[in-house]
Amino acid sequence: MEENMFAPVTGTVTPRYAGLATLMRLPHIGLKDENIPDVDIGLIGVPWDGGTTNRPGARHGPRQVRDISTMVRNVNRSSGIKPFEICNCADLGDTPVNPVDLIDSMNRITAFYDAVCKADIAPLSVGGDHLVTLPILRALAKDGPVGMVHFDAHTDTWNRYFGDNLYTHGTPFRRAIEEGLLDPKRTIQIGIRGALYNDSENDWGERQGIRVIDMDEFRSMGVDAVIQEARRVVGNGRTYVTFDVDALDPVYAPGTGTPEIGGLTTIEAQHMIRGLRGLNLIGGDVVEVSPPFDPTGNTALVAATLMFEILCVLAANISKQKRR
Amino acid sequence: MEENMFAPVTGTVTPRYAGLATLMRLPHIGLKDENIPDVDIGLIGVPWDGGTTNRPGARHGPRQVRDISTMVRNVNRSSGIKPFEICNCADLGDTPVNPVDLIDSMNRITAFYDAVCKADIAPLSVGGDHLVTLPILRALAKDGPVGMVHFDAHTDTWNRYFGDNLYTHGTPFRRAIEEGLLDPKRTIQIGIRGALYNDSENDWGERQGIRVIDMDEFRSMGVDAVIQEARRVVGNGRTYVTFDVDALDPVYAPGTGTPEIGGLTTIEAQHMIRGLRGLNLIGGDVVEVSPPFDPTGNTALVAATLMFEILCVLAANISKQKRR
Amino acid sequence: MEENMFAPVTGTVTPRYAGLATLMRLPHIGLKDENIPDVDIGLIGVPWDGGTTNRPGARHGPRQVRDISTMVRNVNRSSGIKPFEICNCADLGDTPVNPVDLIDSMNRITAFYDAVCKADIAPLSVGGDHLVTLPILRALAKDGPVGMVHFDAHTDTWNRYFGDNLYTHGTPFRRAIEEGLLDPKRTIQIGIRGALYNDSENDWGERQGIRVIDMDEFRSMGVDAVIQEARRVVGNGRTYVTFDVDALDPVYAPGTGTPEIGGLTTIEAQHMIRGLRGLNLIGGDVVEVSPPFDPTGNTALVAATLMFEILCVLAANISKQKRR
Amino acid sequence: MEENMFAPVTGTVTPRYAGLATLMRLPHIGLKDENIPDVDIGLIGVPWDGGTTNRPGARHGPRQVRDISTMVRNVNRSSGIKPFEICNCADLGDTPVNPVDLIDSMNRITAFYDAVCKADIAPLSVGGDHLVTLPILRALAKDGPVGMVHFDAHTDTWNRYFGDNLYTHGTPFRRAIEEGLLDPKRTIQIGIRGALYNDSENDWGERQGIRVIDMDEFRSMGVDAVIQEARRVVGNGRTYVTFDVDALDPVYAPGTGTPEIGGLTTIEAQHMIRGLRGLNLIGGDVVEVSPPFDPTGNTALVAATLMFEILCVLAANISKQKRR
Amino acid sequence: MEENMFAPVTGTVTPRYAGLATLMRLPHIGLKDENIPDVDIGLIGVPWDGGTTNRPGARHGPRQVRDISTMVRNVNRSSGIKPFEICNCADLGDTPVNPVDLIDSMNRITAFYDAVCKADIAPLSVGGDHLVTLPILRALAKDGPVGMVHFDAHTDTWNRYFGDNLYTHGTPFRRAIEEGLLDPKRTIQIGIRGALYNDSENDWGERQGIRVIDMDEFRSMGVDAVIQEARRVVGNGRTYVTFDVDALDPVYAPGTGTPEIGGLTTIEAQHMIRGLRGLNLIGGDVVEVSPPFDPTGNTALVAATLMFEILCVLAANISKQKRR
Amino acid sequence: MEENMFAPVTGTVTPRYAGLATLMRLPHIGLKDENIPDVDIGLIGVPWDGGTTNRPGARHGPRQVRDISTMVRNVNRSSGIKPFEICNCADLGDTPVNPVDLIDSMNRITAFYDAVCKADIAPLSVGGDHLVTLPILRALAKDGPVGMVHFDAHTDTWNRYFGDNLYTHGTPFRRAIEEGLLDPKRTIQIGIRGALYNDSENDWGERQGIRVIDMDEFRSMGVDAVIQEARRVVGNGRTYVTFDVDALDPVYAPGTGTPEIGGLTTIEAQHMIRGLRGLNLIGGDVVEVSPPFDPTGNTALVAATLMFEILCVLAANISKQKRR
Repeated sequence: MEENMFAPVTGTVTPRYAGLATLMRLPHIGLKDENIPDVDIGLIGVPWDGGTTNRPGARHGPRQVRDISTMVRNVNRSSGIKPFEICNCADLGDTPVNPVDLIDSMNRITAFYDAVCKADIAPLSVGGDHLVTLPILRALAKDGPVGMVHFDAHTDTWNRYFGDNLYTHGTPFRRAIEEGLLDPKRTIQIGIRGALYNDSENDWGERQGIRVIDMDEFRSMGVDAVIQEARRVVGNGRTYVTFDVDALDPVYAPGTGTPEIGGLTTIEAQHMIRGLRGLNLIGGDVVEVSPPFDPTGNTALVAATLMFEILCVLAANISKQKRR
Repeated sequence: MEENMFAPVTGTVTPRYAGLATLMRLPHIGLKDENIPDVDIGLIGVPWDGGTTNRPGARHGPRQVRDISTMVRNVNRSSGIKPFEICNCADLGDTPVNPVDLIDSMNRITAFYDAVCKADIAPLSVGGDHLVTLPILRALAKDGPVGMVHFDAHTDTWNRYFGDNLYTHGTPFRRAIEEGLLDPKRTIQIGIRGALYNDSENDWGERQGIRVIDMDEFRSMGVDAVIQEARRVVGNGRTYVTFDVDALDPVYAPGTGTPEIGGLTTIEAQHMIRGLRGLNLIGGDVVEVSPPFDPTGNTALVAATLMFEILCVLAANISKQKRR
Repeated sequence: MEENMFAPVTGTVTPRYAGLATLMRLPHIGLKDENIPDVDIGLIGVPWDGGTTNRPGARHGPRQVRDISTMVRNVNRSSGIKPFEICNCADLGDTPVNPVDLIDSMNRITAFYDAVCKADIAPLSVGGDHLVTLPILRALAKDGPVGMVHFDAHTDTWNRYFGDNLYTHGTPFRRAIEEGLLDPKRTIQIGIRGALYNDSENDWGERQGIRVIDMDEFRSMGVDAVIQEARRVVGNGRTYVTFDVDALDPVYAPGTGTPEIGGLTTIEAQHMIRGLRGLNLIGGDVVEVSPPFDPTGNTALVAATLMFEILCVLAANISKQKRR
Repeated sequence: MEENMFAPVTGTVTPRYAGLATLMRLPHIGLKDENIPDVDIGLIGVPWDGGTTNRPGARHGPRQVRDISTMVRNVNRSSGIKPFEICNCADLGDTPVNPVDLIDSMNRITAFYDAVCKADIAPLSVGGDHLVTLPILRALAKDGPVGMVHFDAHTDTWNRYFGDNLYTHGTPFRRAIEEGLLDPKRTIQIGIRGALYNDSENDWGERQGIRVIDMDEFRSMGVDAVIQEARRVVGNGRTYVTFDVDALDPVYAPGTGTPEIGGLTTIEAQHMIRGLRGLNLIGGDVVEVSPPFDPTGNTALVAATLMFEILCVLAANISKQKRR
Repeated sequence: MEENMFAPVTGTVTPRYAGLATLMRLPHIGLKDENIPDVDIGLIGVPWDGGTTNRPGARHGPRQVRDISTMVRNVNRSSGIKPFEICNCADLGDTPVNPVDLIDSMNRITAFYDAVCKADIAPLSVGGDHLVTLPILRALAKDGPVGMVHFDAHTDTWNRYFGDNLYTHGTPFRRAIEEGLLDPKRTIQIGIRGALYNDSENDWGERQGIRVIDMDEFRSMGVDAVIQEARRVVGNGRTYVTFDVDALDPVYAPGTGTPEIGGLTTIEAQHMIRGLRGLNLIGGDVVEVSPPFDPTGNTALVAATLMFEILCVLAANISKQKRR
Repeated sequence: MEENMFAPVTGTVTPRYAGLATLMRLPHIGLKDENIPDVDIGLIGVPWDGGTTNRPGARHGPRQVRDISTMVRNVNRSSGIKPFEICNCADLGDTPVNPVDLIDSMNRITAFYDAVCKADIAPLSVGGDHLVTLPILRALAKDGPVGMVHFDAHTDTWNRYFGDNLYTHGTPFRRAIEEGLLDPKRTIQIGIRGALYNDSENDWGERQGIRVIDMDEFRSMGVDAVIQEARRVVGNGRTYVTFDVDALDPVYAPGTGTPEIGGLTTIEAQHMIRGLRGLNLIGGDVVEVSPPFDPTGNTALVAATLMFEILCVLAANISKQKRR
């Protein structure tokens, strides 16, 4: 391993606002780059919001997160994990997308992740709206359904919208279960809240076996118990982490398409992600960052920091597996 | 009851950003509309900030809340209440106002609510600055003083400003008590904080019997105890709920005229409003949303969601009374 | 004609910020309303930006324009036209759309305008991105191609994007010509500018006979000559006016998806639209207002005012035809 | 004359963003200060918007203009006038106001200007909404009507609003003429535009003899001819200059209550004000700066710079008169 | 003591948005003013951000805090302290600075505070970036090292940046310890968090004896225990309080140069400051308010309110000492 | 020449908001890259604002211009120039800078441009404040003074600030002339305006022979005559183009440190730059883009587009010289 090559640019030499923006100041290595075989974890942007039913803009998420992620540093103070030392990390750039064709976009995204998987790179992505997780899972779960820790205000297991439309950012996990990509019995949803369309809208998911922890239950359980429950649900199997920033209270993440008041704090989110250490994590994403709806840019800062937290627990697992 | 007529437009057919904006996507029914007799709860805007002593703009609150309230859905996840099924709800539009005459505005507002009361409609209003609650109470409390659950950073029981002026958004509840509209012994104020003009500024209210829970006491009591105290204070009598968004910490509601740091969270506010279920509620309001001071629009989202919470507990009571 | 029913709400009684927002404070009359036969001109929102290749958000245009259009008054100071007196105008609401299906959306939009045409109502629309003009023309030009005065920074006659995609906001007028909806020889494009993808990108349109006046030619001709040229090109036939707000310099309309510096001023735009008086106008639109990209709201104010200018010249023609 | 005492703080020693903000970095001298007799021109804030019928916020104008006016320098490059050398200028602070009482506010404002006049100080004010010019004129025109050069999008000679209300920011000059403060035959209005409420709304003013130059006439005359016409109209008599920032196109001054597209450029405004040199100017104001509606602060920069332009021509006249 | 002279302007006579902005509406008294001997506590702005390594703008902090601090009132509701009655407080204006010379700026700042100390005035300052605390301590700690309660996300004890640079806003407290201004064993840092550059970056400070309470420890200790620990660490010696607003979660203070998610709430900050009552406090500051990064202005409101909290505990000590 | 390698990414395949942001979507080629010898024109960021005397933030300019410059296309519509076909263009990244040391920063910048010149690459830079042009000229004018076309509101030939400081963004061209880098007789300044510190502040420059065209003269000459005058002044010698965005009226470029009203329009700027075609241009820059002061981002769009205009005339010259 060439440590220098994959080390982030340091802020004590090059100021954090200077230079081209890559995710966490990592080297940009395209899928056809000769150094791809050395990459362990690939940070990837998915600049697409074609599944958005209300306020668009998440297509601009990856670029703004790249910009602000240059403020990330190297060592996790809480856990001591040094992701850039234990794994070779790189910014793989953005996936191809088609802003005017939903199905074509999903196919392009899956093709990109197929190549990532083939190169044995664990992906950590930034969306894009939440529908992007479906084409990602189509690549990652080729060999069988995965478990998932899902942070969100919404279950995203609705069925159809606007008549007969199967694919929106409200439906990816229903489709993922139907397609055999996601094991509902190894899936936990945390942060669910907000009014319902109707009484029974959550029944389908729970009937499949999804463990739903809404904000009321979250408040009564406390962060530590939720972590234990998440660990129990996903067990030792391959597990994906998906974090919709609307899981957070909108004061932390106003720049998102479907904000709901009464959500998680960032401290809670950080603690919960740290609590996933030791799980068999294979990848993750942070989605629904919509820059046009946040003039302060704080949403992107939150997303970049949570990506770093996921990266730490992901790197701990990838590093362990590589060492075997 | 014609269910269809009063049902909100659904977001799975018409996107939430589409169509004319009415409060919670309810039908707009003017006071002279033939369907008025069927309305149980009327959502009303009071676009007026003539009582504002510092930063104006609350006159623009109703329109922005109308816009963002199209994100509200149908069933309260926590309580299971379905307000639009158990009551006929409608957007009654805005009251008449006069932006250049304070007394005339108050008279126009009272006249509007007189008509609402005469039609046996329970009003749920959005301001406007907090002085609007006074002309509302003049209509609602015609037959005797009401109790009140009052969320606010300020007691709004000051006496005079700028020489001899009796009416500002700092004085409505002193006037309401003096006019016999409000029973101070059945009034509780929650969220009070911020520096004082002088030692004795709160004495008057407490001498009248108002139960004041400032943020220090709130923190030491906890949400559940505050709910019980509120229920004890207002008892079984007719009770009004007024929510000044500056009761919330300004991170949740920056778009307001007199922000004070150190306030309630939205989760606390939601829990407290849910805790009012079963009280004899006759109406409520959410006030002091000032769009020019919040470029993100989150304040209006918070206000719309809290209106929905109040609507749920109000509808539970109205529905019970109609069934009798 | 019942004058009162179609008169806008007046600002000397109800302040302009008060009440539900309809386009120019006109009555809201749905397509199934009993008063539809009396409507001469219908103001319509098309809240859809599914054809946008870069920055989305135009789906939010109609609602913000409704809000700000409450500042419009009654009499055109320059021309003396009183549109609300010479025609019955109404806000017909928004067309149905499907934010996750481009083809379905275009069909829904066309179906709406079919009904508008059938009711003999001249449509004046607010988008939405520029692709919305295609489904509008499919309804309006059923009986043969129309002429068009087209204000824009871009010709919107590109062919394909992202592989094989025929429909984006860069292609509507190529499609319209191919489908026989638009007579290129009676089409003039004004305000074209910005760098080109390649030398020949504009050739196709000019080969079809479109008269393209780019900003260099515009500056050398002057406003009055451009008006005369527009009148010469479209002649006496049925003519549509489409105004993409990016025709304006971005200082006047920053809230748009593809801004180009060096554009028209609003005064020039107003003079040019006034110069279309007397033409056989059958409808028009103002498109590409994208509120998330303009924190000041000035773009929407500009769009609402230009809609009023188009309304005046449209009403002059519709009124003349009705009188016949 | 103690030159040093009245000299603005210089930016080559104290950066322009540093120190307490006074108008143009002048010394703050209250009306009771012992140095008042030495002041020739007083810069004054009138923080009041009680006459505003639509979007409030102009009460915040003086403070933001104070802040940004620290960027003003000393010598007018075009005319060579050095106002701070030829006159003793000072920031007299803000007038008293009453945000909840319109009539009381006007009285307080007039009382302040009475004292200013008594001290033989020429006032240059920053509003506040345009109604503030009425109480100013009540002090300045005590000894007979003055002439006026009036820049505005609106004539502000309407009669009544909201029933029977005589005083709004749409009526000050009708009242001023009725009260004998303003000589309509020596009054010129420049920049008028926007749709009308009705055909005859401007008749009253023109019947009184006001010379109205709307934007159409302005464009056809050109700046120089308008200057000559203004000079002809006001002649040699005592003349006041009032500049409503909505005379400018809203791209230059978005932060205002009633923006109208199609207005003056700042260059045109600067040239016109410079063209008033040599007239018998006795004071002036810049009004309707509403900070909440301009997140960039450019409106305040424009207002401060135009105040400096007015100051230069005012100082030229005051200096000449003092020398006599 | 002349009470009137040092009393803040009251908001029931002059609205809070009116008048020249001074810190907490106190009188502005320059260092050469004849009333300086009567001043007990001086509020001071340090408009300088020359030590900022990433996002500048804190130089604009003092002016915006002056503006918003006009909302501060007189009596601390929680503690009952009336700072303006027990001490003579004044706004001493801004220190001289040099925006293009770091060393010269530090010298100018120290010279200003030398004069403040000489006049026996306790300083309460608003920055400016955190490097400004170093030149302040050079004046205050002339007679020996002081203790410090330090709220911050960062330890600010880094060594060098950009090669060989000793002075940035990341290094002031290393320099202060090296220069003998700060007693590390009487220094406590609260709120530290965020990823590290490397494992050992905090070792230096802890080796010197600084008590570092990072957010993980803060959460497990609770506010009250942290207060006790702070009191234990600083003991009875002379103690300075420095509050970097990035100690707060960025939702409370987005307008700062180096935000880190997961920070303190304002309620926690207020409680902790109140918990310092009775300590031998000699001065304090609030730093890193960067207005360009907070369009809502809430950061400045938070800073002004925390200044008031520090003022209260500072005044309690100064008053006690003066009475001896 | 490998055409493909230096071609910008096309927007019909990869949307303009997608992918890592480089200047004009060109390949990023570091100074040590093996392809450096093939580069004809290097686009370079200088992220530094250490010379700023008032509002900082221009250090953030390069990153935001990179982002928005992805909207640039390939062919100049007016001139037909295809810069990316006639020259190999690349993004060379940002120069090293030191945000806390002015002199060190200038040395680092000069060292970078020394390497650029040595590689025979013509530089086109984006600042940064205007002081950055001085270290650039130190590299470019090693072999003798160059001529310059200078667009600006200010002459930037002041002498000293804050006592004895030679280097600020108000002094670069005085220093450049003193150092023999700039031939004042071949220098023209266009767009100068705003009040003066004193009568004689511009005398120094004009005595050296600089041709100053202030806005008054600009308006009376017209664009074409100014172009001719600029061509006459600089003649056939080596010429640099520097464009301070505050040359433009602040409505076009609010995001800058020292805005002055009454400036150039973007159309005028574009025409003037196009008018420089055929001159012996050796490089250029666009400076003073300060993103924190422009929430709309339009300033960066303007800067990117003007860079493209400069690139076209620069490429025309470089290409001609290479062909020789």
